[in-house]
Amino acid sequence: MSSPSATPNRYPYQNEPTWSKSEKAIARTAFDAALKRELQEIMQEAKQMANQVNEPADLWDLEYYLTERRKEIDRKYDYRYSQLTQVFGRLLCEKRLGEEELGGLREDKLKPIRSFAKFLAEDTAA
Amino acid sequence: MSSPSATPNRYPYQNEPTWSKSEKAIARTAFDAALKRELQEIMQEAKQMANQVNEPADLWDLEYYLTERRKEIDRKYDYRYSQLTQVFGRLLCEKRLGEEELGGLREDKLKPIRSFAKFLAEDTAA
Repeated sequence: MSSPSATPNRYPYQNEPTWSKSEKAIARTAFDAALKRELQEIMQEAKQMANQVNEPADLWDLEYYLTERRKEIDRKYDYRYSQLTQVFGRLLCEKRLGEEELGGLREDKLKPIRSFAKFLAEDTAA
Repeated sequence: MSSPSATPNRYPYQNEPTWSKSEKAIARTAFDAALKRELQEIMQEAKQMANQVNEPADLWDLEYYLTERRKEIDRKYDYRYSQLTQVFGRLLCEKRLGEEELGGLREDKLKPIRSFAKFLAEDTAA
């Protein structure tokens, strides 16, 4: 209960980069565009699967596919600034986002984004 | 721990009607036919829903529809002889089975089947 002379670490994320107003706008646009594309892809795939349903097992495969995609979308698209570098890193790695869509972000964001994308790519390849 | 003079009720279902071989064959055919029709109906409905998917919410509606139908099918189609009169009673009440499909069953089966169908119909109407 003694008072340390150094400023205590009151906010655990204080070392994270702050996002400027224009960076937030760029991030939101890129995030929404990637999410929209992925949802469109799932809609196309679900329609195709439904068209090919011939027996009951195909129905439950479709149900399982939708449940898994919904959970994956929920996990992957986490719009918190503390998570965004990882989110964008993953989307870059999965080629769901082009790096040009992140143009305008400062290097303190782009560097960890690229670095996480590279980590994931190597992790997948290993 | 005393021995009662009356025969103890060793088997809880001993008062249930027994199903003859020919009745079992009739029951199996009727059961399978109703299940097949209901699954066909769900397949048609799912295809139609998938064709009309325009936005992500429609996808999750389709997922929910499939999950609920799967659970309902699991609950409803219980092929145990101890459950069959209720199963057929429900299917009669829902008009998923015609009484003629149960032709050949003895009255000790048909009576409780009709009676349960009537109970459900009145219960739903109330």
